[in-house]
Amino acid sequence: MPTIKCDNYNVHINDDWNNFGEFIGSREYSKIGVLVDENTKLHCLPKFLAGVKELEYVLIEITSGEQQKNLETCQHIWNTMLDNGFDRHSLLINLGGGVIGDMGGFCACTFMRGMDFIQVPTTLLSQVDASVGGKLGIDFQDYKNLIGVIQNPIMVWIDDHFLETLESRQIRSGYAEIIKHALIQDAEMWEEIKEITNLENIEWGPIIERSVKIKRDVVVQDQREGGLRKILNFGHTLGHAIESENLHQPDFLLHGEAIGIGMITEAYISKELLDLCEEEYIDIKNYILSIYPHYPNHLVNEKNILEKLLKDKKNRRGLVNFSLLKKLGECTFDVKPNESTIIKSLEDYKTL
Amino acid sequence: MPTIKCDNYNVHINDDWNNFGEFIGSREYSKIGVLVDENTKLHCLPKFLAGVKELEYVLIEITSGEQQKNLETCQHIWNTMLDNGFDRHSLLINLGGGVIGDMGGFCACTFMRGMDFIQVPTTLLSQVDASVGGKLGIDFQDYKNLIGVIQNPIMVWIDDHFLETLESRQIRSGYAEIIKHALIQDAEMWEEIKEITNLENIEWGPIIERSVKIKRDVVVQDQREGGLRKILNFGHTLGHAIESENLHQPDFLLHGEAIGIGMITEAYISKELLDLCEEEYIDIKNYILSIYPHYPNHLVNEKNILEKLLKDKKNRRGLVNFSLLKKLGECTFDVKPNESTIIKSLEDYKTL
Repeated sequence: MPTIKCDNYNVHINDDWNNFGEFIGSREYSKIGVLVDENTKLHCLPKFLAGVKELEYVLIEITSGEQQKNLETCQHIWNTMLDNGFDRHSLLINLGGGVIGDMGGFCACTFMRGMDFIQVPTTLLSQVDASVGGKLGIDFQDYKNLIGVIQNPIMVWIDDHFLETLESRQIRSGYAEIIKHALIQDAEMWEEIKEITNLENIEWGPIIERSVKIKRDVVVQDQREGGLRKILNFGHTLGHAIESENLHQPDFLLHGEAIGIGMITEAYISKELLDLCEEEYIDIKNYILSIYPHYPNHLVNEKNILEKLLKDKKNRRGLVNFSLLKKLGECTFDVKPNESTIIKSLEDYKTL
Repeated sequence: MPTIKCDNYNVHINDDWNNFGEFIGSREYSKIGVLVDENTKLHCLPKFLAGVKELEYVLIEITSGEQQKNLETCQHIWNTMLDNGFDRHSLLINLGGGVIGDMGGFCACTFMRGMDFIQVPTTLLSQVDASVGGKLGIDFQDYKNLIGVIQNPIMVWIDDHFLETLESRQIRSGYAEIIKHALIQDAEMWEEIKEITNLENIEWGPIIERSVKIKRDVVVQDQREGGLRKILNFGHTLGHAIESENLHQPDFLLHGEAIGIGMITEAYISKELLDLCEEEYIDIKNYILSIYPHYPNHLVNEKNILEKLLKDKKNRRGLVNFSLLKKLGECTFDVKPNESTIIKSLEDYKTL
């Protein structure tokens, strides 16, 4: 089974669960915590415990949802670890999606100035994206991941069987990062995934592996996002702003749904400012719209979306930095479109 | 003027302030914040601004005191940075004692997953201790520094003129770490500082330099406290427990005052369990008692102090780890005295 080496830890994909048990067994942890939400407790914990037999652990439970990814929930996690006698030689296993991984990792890194943690991502999104690169954190004052650190886990354990209990909308959301990885780095993979017209009954293991390797190759060169790593933000500049603008609406978008819009609009800007040609733009747009619905209503408040752009962490001195496609499979960063080009890209999306 | 190299940054001691201005001027920060409390705003900020001329900065003010070193104050700092358009290319300058440095550093490291910070320690304690080693954090649920990270600043700037406005009790508190550095690593320095019988009118620069170098030499070998760094905890195992037990009393102890008790009691345990001889113990005890008052009343609640010991971050599997002296100028770590020896050390102190 494939093991992908990232800096000082490994990402295991569909590996033998006995190896998981051996890995932690050899390390003599003083305490082991398993962080879950009500969904992963129900759907993933039984499978996890069947894999890692005879584990003595403390269950730490939080409520699911991006709305819980805040300091209050961190305090619950820290308190639970404190009450159960955790120390800096303890381990936290984060069993869940991006919220669990990002927040659990942040809590582990900051508890007594840092204890070990393992990521066991259980959604497609977190398996292909959040599991690699060490970005951890929580939301603050409506800004996503405003408070956090960059630090690697000691292991990432991906099992695509966890995806079996996911709703199809969640699968579709995670798939956006797979599309992105192909678009920014691997034109051949792009041609291959375009053949996928239906996300059911897919054998995810090999696709996850390819996607994780792309991200790993980028991140090992530039973990702190001084340069190259910024290409991973393709689709995320407008995507994040649109996601954030609609976060509290009843018809809010999942992360990958917003990134789908972000990839179309940022491909449009790429066409306007860089060498991406019209046909490539149409190719991208058509494929994404064959997988995701069209969401024109989520772009109504253009002014708010533009304001959110300016508050993005990726900015420098008030200019909005975009990562844009030079062609299929090649991405560049630190491009600063003017406001009218950004507005045109949103208008274009709305009239598709 | 001496510049001490620590890993990837320098500690400047009594350096020309023009060098400070040049250092930050060359880095094109999007925003610069200066974190102060009401005391350093009054006593240190004017001197700082006279040194770093024409600085455009945002003043971030917090209330002084260990009681403020918590998540609520962090939120105030993060909010102020957010409201003023700080981003990950901004700089935070922490102008103050240990609370300002530890908390400001933690806030900077976690804001947008990390921005630069400079430590400008203004108390003797923070100049000789907190300025080197990268330990950052806040208190949580009555436990000191329970939440935090280890990360280095981009520069430490020590100016002993800041000490002129300090109360003598604060100077005495910081001096405890100087005594500790001599006791654990430098017998010659111990003989020299024993000549100091009055802490007024001291030329602090050279003493700070020597003390910082000792700490630097330890920390560069073991930043994450896997082994050697633990020797810096001499006096701090019982010292922290005693400080913490009396934190909410009207006659609470300053950090160094508690560490003074910790060094006497842990020297007693060193004598009982290791090769430290009776004369050396008496030498340590007499010198510390010539500088600090005798505080028997602060050791009355022995049971609480023992309980606090067990919750110390330094522990592993419920055993209390002490760093103890083998002789003057030499320290070892991971010694686990039994409870009766610990109690004897407290009883001995009370009857001095």
